[in-house]
Amino acid sequence: MDNFRIAKDTLGEVKVPKDAYYGAQTQRAVENFPISGIRLPFSFIKAQAIIKASAAFANKECKALNDEKANAIISAADEVINGEWRDQFVVDAYQAGAGTSQNMNMNEVLASRASEILGGKKGDYSLVHPNDDVNMSQSTNDTIPTAIQISVASELQTRLYPALNRLNKVLREKEMEFHEIIKAGRTHLQDAVPIRLGSEFKGYRGTLESVQHALEHSENSLYALGLGGNAVGTGINAHPDYAQLAIKQIAQKTNLPFTQSDNTYAFMQNTNAAIRVSGHLKELAVHLIKISSDLRLLSSGPRTGLAEITLPAVQPGSSIMPGKINPVILENMYMICSQVIGNDACVSTAAIGSQLEINAMMPVIGFNVLQSITILSNGISIFTERCLKGIKANEENIQNWLEQSLSLVTALNPHIGYEKAAAVAKESFETGQTLKAVLVSKKILSKEEADRILDPNSMI
Amino acid sequence: MDNFRIAKDTLGEVKVPKDAYYGAQTQRAVENFPISGIRLPFSFIKAQAIIKASAAFANKECKALNDEKANAIISAADEVINGEWRDQFVVDAYQAGAGTSQNMNMNEVLASRASEILGGKKGDYSLVHPNDDVNMSQSTNDTIPTAIQISVASELQTRLYPALNRLNKVLREKEMEFHEIIKAGRTHLQDAVPIRLGSEFKGYRGTLESVQHALEHSENSLYALGLGGNAVGTGINAHPDYAQLAIKQIAQKTNLPFTQSDNTYAFMQNTNAAIRVSGHLKELAVHLIKISSDLRLLSSGPRTGLAEITLPAVQPGSSIMPGKINPVILENMYMICSQVIGNDACVSTAAIGSQLEINAMMPVIGFNVLQSITILSNGISIFTERCLKGIKANEENIQNWLEQSLSLVTALNPHIGYEKAAAVAKESFETGQTLKAVLVSKKILSKEEADRILDPNSMI
Amino acid sequence: MDNFRIAKDTLGEVKVPKDAYYGAQTQRAVENFPISGIRLPFSFIKAQAIIKASAAFANKECKALNDEKANAIISAADEVINGEWRDQFVVDAYQAGAGTSQNMNMNEVLASRASEILGGKKGDYSLVHPNDDVNMSQSTNDTIPTAIQISVASELQTRLYPALNRLNKVLREKEMEFHEIIKAGRTHLQDAVPIRLGSEFKGYRGTLESVQHALEHSENSLYALGLGGNAVGTGINAHPDYAQLAIKQIAQKTNLPFTQSDNTYAFMQNTNAAIRVSGHLKELAVHLIKISSDLRLLSSGPRTGLAEITLPAVQPGSSIMPGKINPVILENMYMICSQVIGNDACVSTAAIGSQLEINAMMPVIGFNVLQSITILSNGISIFTERCLKGIKANEENIQNWLEQSLSLVTALNPHIGYEKAAAVAKESFETGQTLKAVLVSKKILSKEEADRILDPNSMI
Amino acid sequence: MDNFRIAKDTLGEVKVPKDAYYGAQTQRAVENFPISGIRLPFSFIKAQAIIKASAAFANKECKALNDEKANAIISAADEVINGEWRDQFVVDAYQAGAGTSQNMNMNEVLASRASEILGGKKGDYSLVHPNDDVNMSQSTNDTIPTAIQISVASELQTRLYPALNRLNKVLREKEMEFHEIIKAGRTHLQDAVPIRLGSEFKGYRGTLESVQHALEHSENSLYALGLGGNAVGTGINAHPDYAQLAIKQIAQKTNLPFTQSDNTYAFMQNTNAAIRVSGHLKELAVHLIKISSDLRLLSSGPRTGLAEITLPAVQPGSSIMPGKINPVILENMYMICSQVIGNDACVSTAAIGSQLEINAMMPVIGFNVLQSITILSNGISIFTERCLKGIKANEENIQNWLEQSLSLVTALNPHIGYEKAAAVAKESFETGQTLKAVLVSKKILSKEEADRILDPNSMI
Repeated sequence: MDNFRIAKDTLGEVKVPKDAYYGAQTQRAVENFPISGIRLPFSFIKAQAIIKASAAFANKECKALNDEKANAIISAADEVINGEWRDQFVVDAYQAGAGTSQNMNMNEVLASRASEILGGKKGDYSLVHPNDDVNMSQSTNDTIPTAIQISVASELQTRLYPALNRLNKVLREKEMEFHEIIKAGRTHLQDAVPIRLGSEFKGYRGTLESVQHALEHSENSLYALGLGGNAVGTGINAHPDYAQLAIKQIAQKTNLPFTQSDNTYAFMQNTNAAIRVSGHLKELAVHLIKISSDLRLLSSGPRTGLAEITLPAVQPGSSIMPGKINPVILENMYMICSQVIGNDACVSTAAIGSQLEINAMMPVIGFNVLQSITILSNGISIFTERCLKGIKANEENIQNWLEQSLSLVTALNPHIGYEKAAAVAKESFETGQTLKAVLVSKKILSKEEADRILDPNSMI
Repeated sequence: MDNFRIAKDTLGEVKVPKDAYYGAQTQRAVENFPISGIRLPFSFIKAQAIIKASAAFANKECKALNDEKANAIISAADEVINGEWRDQFVVDAYQAGAGTSQNMNMNEVLASRASEILGGKKGDYSLVHPNDDVNMSQSTNDTIPTAIQISVASELQTRLYPALNRLNKVLREKEMEFHEIIKAGRTHLQDAVPIRLGSEFKGYRGTLESVQHALEHSENSLYALGLGGNAVGTGINAHPDYAQLAIKQIAQKTNLPFTQSDNTYAFMQNTNAAIRVSGHLKELAVHLIKISSDLRLLSSGPRTGLAEITLPAVQPGSSIMPGKINPVILENMYMICSQVIGNDACVSTAAIGSQLEINAMMPVIGFNVLQSITILSNGISIFTERCLKGIKANEENIQNWLEQSLSLVTALNPHIGYEKAAAVAKESFETGQTLKAVLVSKKILSKEEADRILDPNSMI
Repeated sequence: MDNFRIAKDTLGEVKVPKDAYYGAQTQRAVENFPISGIRLPFSFIKAQAIIKASAAFANKECKALNDEKANAIISAADEVINGEWRDQFVVDAYQAGAGTSQNMNMNEVLASRASEILGGKKGDYSLVHPNDDVNMSQSTNDTIPTAIQISVASELQTRLYPALNRLNKVLREKEMEFHEIIKAGRTHLQDAVPIRLGSEFKGYRGTLESVQHALEHSENSLYALGLGGNAVGTGINAHPDYAQLAIKQIAQKTNLPFTQSDNTYAFMQNTNAAIRVSGHLKELAVHLIKISSDLRLLSSGPRTGLAEITLPAVQPGSSIMPGKINPVILENMYMICSQVIGNDACVSTAAIGSQLEINAMMPVIGFNVLQSITILSNGISIFTERCLKGIKANEENIQNWLEQSLSLVTALNPHIGYEKAAAVAKESFETGQTLKAVLVSKKILSKEEADRILDPNSMI
Repeated sequence: MDNFRIAKDTLGEVKVPKDAYYGAQTQRAVENFPISGIRLPFSFIKAQAIIKASAAFANKECKALNDEKANAIISAADEVINGEWRDQFVVDAYQAGAGTSQNMNMNEVLASRASEILGGKKGDYSLVHPNDDVNMSQSTNDTIPTAIQISVASELQTRLYPALNRLNKVLREKEMEFHEIIKAGRTHLQDAVPIRLGSEFKGYRGTLESVQHALEHSENSLYALGLGGNAVGTGINAHPDYAQLAIKQIAQKTNLPFTQSDNTYAFMQNTNAAIRVSGHLKELAVHLIKISSDLRLLSSGPRTGLAEITLPAVQPGSSIMPGKINPVILENMYMICSQVIGNDACVSTAAIGSQLEINAMMPVIGFNVLQSITILSNGISIFTERCLKGIKANEENIQNWLEQSLSLVTALNPHIGYEKAAAVAKESFETGQTLKAVLVSKKILSKEEADRILDPNSMI
């Protein structure tokens, strides 16, 4: 009993842990939403604190908030930005619509902490009030989507892009390393004309660079913030200069080019920019599945598969089959990407839930986009460093497959026509003879011509 | 100008084609919904007509409709059931919420045709009225979900189950045919312990039978009809005996065990039974992708792949590479299944659209479920007859892979332990020696022991 | 440096925390998969331990494992089952394909702990070996899907079904409580004929009971275990009696009707039963979105919405708008269900990843299905207790809407026909007169007839 | 029997309809793929013909094809481009992997038609050969993704963008028209602070413009063509100048800025640009659902809903409820968007199917993206012209809701603080008094102050 204090909100009294910086509304949310045990990530908490500090600064400039309160709020928020009080953000990721509980958790913690700074104590809102002071000029409805956009942009910048850049750099190195290795192409998993091993990696890089380019363009839409729109986009109760001042401060604190949206209504009706980023993450996931599945196929073996490449061995592969090494990093990538595809389906479903002035389903949108960025960034880095970088070409196997490929026959088209070439391929396959042997024995080409035309090096 | 007549509904006059059996409301729908050019399939039209005939019969029995009118409506509906007047159902699949236009198209055509039967002419509703007579005791809100359930059940019975039964029969034949063929197992696409080729097909069959079993159980929920619920489930304006009589008649006409739902409200709030079937179709699609992808992998080659099996050649594979034969039937299956997965996502999104008494998004649900059944049924039949049935095992290749598989080493675990066995596998792989050679040269086992333990036949 | 010990596996040496029960392979997995920070839930860990105990028991019975080792393993596993050593299961949910790391984590922890029990120490596998003893007769490939099926079945039984049963019970209570309240029906969000408020709740119950019934049927497929199939389904290295004995033991330990699958190949090629359950969870989610969205609509207001019902106030609704109470529990439900729909899309994508003998993407399938069950169970319970149970009908508002509804006109159809009724409705709407006033002034009906026919009580 | 002729390909003889321009491979495809009865749309056929004409032109320039043949092929292709021979493209949309059948259908028709032009007859390939001449320098693997990109870009330009531009123009008109109408805002469907009716439409426009902007940026990636990459991206058998010449010709014929991709491998491994466009179409669909659902909610009624706006009546709403008018155009939009979301899930699944040098699942990707564009374009146009344009504001209702809204209390925050304001709101709601009455009777504000602060006009 001694471990609790009585907190109050407009609905009445609630018992909260004695040492908690948060208050009644947070406690209600903890009790209302014991759903997953998972909370919004620190990148999101940090973005919220940046908003609160920036709002306090702007309110101070506008003379809406006195300097003492504003400075205390800013100090408290800066502590959160620097990683303190992380255990005070206790609301489940699956929580109140629009994230009201998330916003109030931050308001209450900062109010308590700012009160302490001013010599008061936790939960004594007479010095600093969570709604009137910390939340001044704000609403859940503009701060939560703002926090989503700040955190998503930051995570893209600091986590996903570096991981992708490094991946593309290593892909380019592999492209160079494997440039001279000519191998049997395969389409429909059937013999096709030769291709450089390096070209396959060039293809992977090309796709990923294209996705990244598109993502970076869409990222721009994250920088237009509707902060200041307040409850429904009209900016009720906020000073006319507030929004601009607050957003400028956010840009400074994040070192990212945030500006004021010219359409606060659109900003609040949905979280369009985050939804768009989610779509690109899904696009990225789809291609990473293709790439990682290709590498699993090319490294299949060691004896009963294509075995054109060898992956680094990072752990024993089987609990029962000794000596087995599995492409675990690549399979991990597939699983991560499955989740990202699923998360995008979640985001779409949540996006549909928007009604009139706001989309109350924002929290699950923010959570899923951030989670997708996290697992993709980590997965890509691991893939790059523990798998891709160490891939070796098995040139002997590659050469064997190449020489056998029936599709070398394609080079004959301009010389003997598609139909005759098809007959040669068929006879070669059915008799087990080489293409050259058939061509020469049937007197279709001389040995010299056959050697020249069927040289894979000339087909690239 | 001469090609049109003036039709009327409660909103006023509309020009309709002179010879059209349909009337004003259908024509409005044609003009309101020029969306895809695709219409609901005949299975759905037929189900609608069955409902109209059965309702007329029931209304006649209840003395709500006079015999002459009822019989004329029944005759007209029977014509539609038998395939006549198919060109008169002209509303786009993407149409009015709840399918009001679809229902009125049927009401208007049958009213016109019944009028003709009674000696009147098209569009003269004084003899038979589309709303008061053809639609008597009914509403769009109960007839459209009823038509969905009837058509889905019929299509499952007459198309999908026969196709699945035949597929499973042929899978079982392959299981038998390939029982004695022992091959290298592969897990993670890496060498694994031996398995019968027949066992792989047994696995496929087991999964598909399980899905079919689950689908058949869920199919039961299609048979509880909420017909008679009328506009909101209360049965307003309908005779107390009507629902039971109409549904009994539907059961007779379809020869399927339809009964009266004990919860018309649930029936109308969504189209739960169809949504559930869609989920199972997605489940089926997921597994058909796995099976068809496996077969593409096992038939990869002819020279540069695993080539453990050969598929029947059904068409030339390439416009440029002569002699190429592609697994087109299997790729077709993958594409069909992608669509079915997509259709299920459509169905889920539409299902969420339900509001209060009805789900207005029913038409797109019905359309997608029926399309999924159609393309799956056709795809499965083609797969069975043009691909699976003619699959041949390439025993020589299979034997070669098997002998090389490093995973035979697993059989040593009980004799020398996992760690020592792993060392043997590693040395074998690195030196290129056979497992037996390593075992004997290292004096771990005698040649006889090695032969016995490493015999794949003993590992099955 | 003193905090580590050197552990070994077939790839070499690894530093592990000195006090860790796990060993080299687990440590490699920790380093290979720093992806999400989220681990598989305890329900899964417990299922794994149940399998290990049961396998040790069966191996003992078969004389494959000596009593001392077997008993030590069983004791160690029982400790895990009882919740000890939870911090020793440290592999990320996004991990090695097939869950090899998860299986080895359990094998290593139990080997260390069993060694301790036998007087040895952690990581000394000379007494009890993780592969040869703890994993005896098993493989990742059969234990992981077995653990998925055990944990999913248990979670359905102990968490989801009780939550659903309670929900349906309270829905039935509301159905009774609101039976006498007649209200305006709404279809397409437009005035429709009257319905009981209780009937809407009856509809919700009917749908949910139907989903639960289907889920329970599909749950049956979870009980057929392919344990004993081992690496590829053939049961290599296992005693012929092992599988049956182990599974019987699992059934005893879980008190659930697990039996031996007659198709180990199907069991291992995918995790069909779990995929099916995921489909039903999605189905459930779709309907819970409908129900919770309906309740948000009916409780919209308090002044500017339909306000037919009032939800219990569980927390203040807004950080800026005083006195606002939001339907947070219902919005929470929408967000949970969005995630479940997304998780099912993840599961489908992972299911497609199956290749040949196993589906290496199993871990992400298991993780998502279990997470969906958890958040649905918690969300449903909260919804039932903190929202549904306390819903009040606002009878005055309901009566007002009902009296105004233009759709009462439907009752006139049998008396004056659809077209004349439509004209009455139109005039009423355009002039603002009541339906009765129009009927009487136009002399269509006498006042008495109008009163009688337009009485909503007679329309139910 | 007389209605057929014998055609031949490398697999042997086939009977084709006597008058068919297509030949053996097309006929085989017709028999192999009786799946859906749906074919790829004309936009795709046209794109294929543009490629064939452009390739013939380039081959002529490179002296690889003689002038006579080239000109005949170009003439034949121009006929197809102009809409002739549409009935000759008979392959199902669900067809051979990679679209080989689709490519051969075009090759065969053009070969026959070009032969006719040169005085030969259908199916006599001695004059013009489908593979050697029409398909010269090409492969299915580069022409099909090229055709997808051409047709998708054309359809975006000629159908979707005009529809979106028009929609946004009308949204802006509504924004102006409704600028002066101040209404109750609603968040969480609960009373919120006032907003202009025009601002809601401004929000819709802002979102859609943002999506269109993103789509247009992504559209750019459609213009980089890998034509010339041929079978695997290496350009085997093609003249070095061919690709550039052919693509320049395509740009001319389409009047769109197509250029040569610098990464043919990426181009062929997937159809990344089309997949990306599909993602944006899904994004568009999600927001159109929100907008159309909002409009349904605002127009709910006419008597039992919010009834803030009235939609144009486009057709009678109910087969049973006279006078009912439903928001059919808006529901149609929801259904269309459900399909687009589903189609994107199909596209993602198909995208994952890419293996090594090509993605064999391209046909279903192309088909779905084109269908999504078609139904969205048509749906948006109908929505704009038959619904949005004619929306009327019901100012009396709007005013009534506004005056009642409890959220006007928010304006008191800066004056009396959040907590006291909440108490006022609560008392007002519980007693049924107006906010002003409570304020004055409690002597919190004078009547003048209350009037001024609670004036909704000052809250915008």
